[in-house]
Amino acid sequence: MVVKVSVNSQGLAAFSQDILMEVGLSANDAAITTESLIDANLRGVDTHGISRLSIYTKRLAEGVVKAKPQMKLLKNTETSAILAGDNGQGQVVGMRATEEAIKMATEKGSGWIGVKQSNHFGTAAFFGMKISAAGHIGLVLSNAPSTMVPFGGSSPYFGTNPISITIPVGSELPIVIDMATSVVAQGKIILAEKEGKSIPEGWAVDKSGNPTTDSRAALEGAVLPLGGPKGSALALMVDIFSGVLTGACWGPHLNSMWSDFKDPQQVGHFIGAINIKGFMPLEQFQERIKQLIKEIKGVPAAPGFKEVYLPGEIEFQIREERLANGIPLGKVVFAELVKLGKRYNKSFENYI
Amino acid sequence: MVVKVSVNSQGLAAFSQDILMEVGLSANDAAITTESLIDANLRGVDTHGISRLSIYTKRLAEGVVKAKPQMKLLKNTETSAILAGDNGQGQVVGMRATEEAIKMATEKGSGWIGVKQSNHFGTAAFFGMKISAAGHIGLVLSNAPSTMVPFGGSSPYFGTNPISITIPVGSELPIVIDMATSVVAQGKIILAEKEGKSIPEGWAVDKSGNPTTDSRAALEGAVLPLGGPKGSALALMVDIFSGVLTGACWGPHLNSMWSDFKDPQQVGHFIGAINIKGFMPLEQFQERIKQLIKEIKGVPAAPGFKEVYLPGEIEFQIREERLANGIPLGKVVFAELVKLGKRYNKSFENYI
Repeated sequence: MVVKVSVNSQGLAAFSQDILMEVGLSANDAAITTESLIDANLRGVDTHGISRLSIYTKRLAEGVVKAKPQMKLLKNTETSAILAGDNGQGQVVGMRATEEAIKMATEKGSGWIGVKQSNHFGTAAFFGMKISAAGHIGLVLSNAPSTMVPFGGSSPYFGTNPISITIPVGSELPIVIDMATSVVAQGKIILAEKEGKSIPEGWAVDKSGNPTTDSRAALEGAVLPLGGPKGSALALMVDIFSGVLTGACWGPHLNSMWSDFKDPQQVGHFIGAINIKGFMPLEQFQERIKQLIKEIKGVPAAPGFKEVYLPGEIEFQIREERLANGIPLGKVVFAELVKLGKRYNKSFENYI
Repeated sequence: MVVKVSVNSQGLAAFSQDILMEVGLSANDAAITTESLIDANLRGVDTHGISRLSIYTKRLAEGVVKAKPQMKLLKNTETSAILAGDNGQGQVVGMRATEEAIKMATEKGSGWIGVKQSNHFGTAAFFGMKISAAGHIGLVLSNAPSTMVPFGGSSPYFGTNPISITIPVGSELPIVIDMATSVVAQGKIILAEKEGKSIPEGWAVDKSGNPTTDSRAALEGAVLPLGGPKGSALALMVDIFSGVLTGACWGPHLNSMWSDFKDPQQVGHFIGAINIKGFMPLEQFQERIKQLIKEIKGVPAAPGFKEVYLPGEIEFQIREERLANGIPLGKVVFAELVKLGKRYNKSFENYI
């Protein structure tokens, strides 16, 4: 086996689809989950890509995540609702909420869906980009199990609670913001640990609260909030919207996807769509955004930088490159997929 | 004259009220503006307090800001509208939008007001706290003239574009987030320069793009975005919501409050309210928030910290202290207020 190989995205998607159907997802739900994983890999966000297939499969196979959830939507106002996900796969639950938010925004100007009883849903931007494809601004938040210290605290309380904001840009590439409220997403530390690498200073503390560059010690400790009090405040905001307001769990009350195979994760999300037509015609907005993009791209680069990038722009470049040349897989992830295939009598090598 | 004195907030408010009415604001509009300034001082945010009275007065007196604007509200959907501020005082325009957002959220679940033709509106939290007092979650954004480099750029494009999120907490103090998307608000650099102080490393670059601790050089240069690409993305988001979507100006197209006495500033805001009842009963939400607050306060402090604070908590403590002991004024600001009083035949010393 080689140390690093590039595999084509269609083959990877077909493998993911077949494996997820083996553990009980419908063809449609397997396709949603697969699209989220492959989209992450294509955009270079390998932490949220196919490397998660093994853990998703394990949880579905063991029934810790329900393959056939009975979701319930409770509309409280014309523009807000709670979606109870019945412990379904996060991407499936998230997509149901996304569709409802788009519908409300199209009809009523905006739509805000609080989601409870969900699970890890992949990248937040995956849903945001669906909202932007419908011509609306997307706002997608999710909480996550406790791995981050609040500013001034010595033990973890918040998750790395991501924020995604997506802007429809017409003929240009959409603007896609997707950021953990920690200095870095914990997925980067998980991947570093999986590959046996160290992490830069300033990302995390060990279990005693001391700074560390050891990825394993960091996973036993906690990550640090972005910019101290500001990132801590944003993580709190995400937990209030996703956890407190929805009836889901929050912070330390969420269960780990990686270590708890008995209890549902109880993740909460908050998915919103804002109809641009509520403010100005979409075409006018897109003309203005084009001007903004042109101007920002025209700002001279700082020493050490090639150019100024818009949020999501580098990910679109990686996508082009990976669609052409394949998705690179590390040794550990590759071996995991081979092993996973064997469990379900699928030869991973035959797909790629 | 002493170097630093503490003055009582009522006296300071009365002075502000009288001066603002002298330059044409109605009693009601002067009261809104004054409340915003004094509230900022009471909460310890001196950069956005009475130190701004001189510049506000100068702009109103010279007619660069309209004392009697004819604002127009254009409702496009049941939950979204554009408010054209007709170049009115920022606090007056912002409050009009805030009232409309509260009304929409109360009736329809949420309300989103894009504001154009406005001016510097003080702290964003001032409006957010009004929204929370009505039992809704507040989201208040504003753009500002270009003073911040985009990540990877060497010259300013964005303003320090603040984000305020406010959470109604029942019998507890509200949770009040109000943060510039720069490492620090430019007001802190303005105040440092006014008081002849230097600034910490990492806040700003000079006009050649080099790091500086000289507050004057920093004002000629640019501030840095919070956490690099993340703060830069958040500032972009604020400019898209406040400037692009509203029909206001954005980034480098906004005019300076401090140096341009010919053109309107053309500031844009985005003011939103989300009705908690659209998701769960307010009482249930507040019970859950109380638990969250109790748990966060229970996280052990990190070395060098006394305790973990909620966003806005320190500001409420300062408020208590300043209501009892007065608002401290630096030498330069004090002298400015004395001079301002003389111009309008009001003795500042007689008010305090």
